[in-house]
Amino acid sequence: MKLIIAIVQDEDAPKLVESLMKNNFGVTKLASTGGFLRAGNTTLIIGVKKERLDEAIGIIKKLCKSRKRVTTSPAPNTWSAGVYMPYPVEVNVGGATIFVVDVEDFQKI
Amino acid sequence: MKLIIAIVQDEDAPKLVESLMKNNFGVTKLASTGGFLRAGNTTLIIGVKKERLDEAIGIIKKLCKSRKRVTTSPAPNTWSAGVYMPYPVEVNVGGATIFVVDVEDFQKI
Amino acid sequence: MKLIIAIVQDEDAPKLVESLMKNNFGVTKLASTGGFLRAGNTTLIIGVKKERLDEAIGIIKKLCKSRKRVTTSPAPNTWSAGVYMPYPVEVNVGGATIFVVDVEDFQKI
Ligand code: NI
Ligand code: NI
Ligand code: NI
Repeated sequence: MKLIIAIVQDEDAPKLVESLMKNNFGVTKLASTGGFLRAGNTTLIIGVKKERLDEAIGIIKKLCKSRKRVTTSPAPNTWSAGVYMPYPVEVNVGGATIFVVDVEDFQKI
Repeated sequence: MKLIIAIVQDEDAPKLVESLMKNNFGVTKLASTGGFLRAGNTTLIIGVKKERLDEAIGIIKKLCKSRKRVTTSPAPNTWSAGVYMPYPVEVNVGGATIFVVDVEDFQKI
Repeated sequence: MKLIIAIVQDEDAPKLVESLMKNNFGVTKLASTGGFLRAGNTTLIIGVKKERLDEAIGIIKKLCKSRKRVTTSPAPNTWSAGVYMPYPVEVNVGGATIFVVDVEDFQKI
């Protein structure tokens, strides 16, 4: 048995959890980190049998992959003659940090 | 030293924590999982000496054991002639998921 | 790779996180424990390369060391002739509980 500790973006968490559960992985969601640090992240604890470790990590990689998104951003230079001019910018979203830890004993009671 | 990561029902957590602390186990309660997933669960981190591992797990098993509870539930077929008829149903409560992980270094400062 | 699970006082957490990040450690803050137990504690997950483990623990020790603080406390015997008489008391603040766990696999995606 292994324990995956996965830190993912809040916006990726619901789909990831749904997919993991559909595939019969036990997932526990820890409350998101708050405020000053990494706001917007969710930490998941996933218990997996050794044989299914790659499968679980594959699901995380598929659903949380780092990607670009085009958004409009108010930047200082978007003001022209007092008129606000939003313009498209690319931002990175997604990504995940994954730790795998060995489990010496696992019990479900 | 071992680390027990125990996911228990919210309603079992207070008694469990009290009992663990009375028995001199160091317990940390992580904030409950929110909303969409396993609402009502609490994750506890318990640091234990190897020699006391079974004792700690025994306390968890005793206080979080899966059990039936009779409750009254509003089900579609409990309406008869427009009158709400609650009737008793059995629900499962309790239960816990326990992971034991080896601790390479433990320090209290 | 190692995982440090550090339970520190809320008031020490911001400076600790700042210092760890300045030194390029990946830190994730789990939501504080609530209410009835160890209120005021924050749990941090820190991923570190084996070679930098002592450095990370050194930072925790420096910024979270247990210390005395003089405060004024309203105690029953501070009332004299109906007048509230606060007097200085020493309280312990700081301190941390540190667990180090081995990481079998670490991925950043
Ligand atoms: Ni195993
Ligand atoms: Ni040990
Ligand atoms: Ni390693």
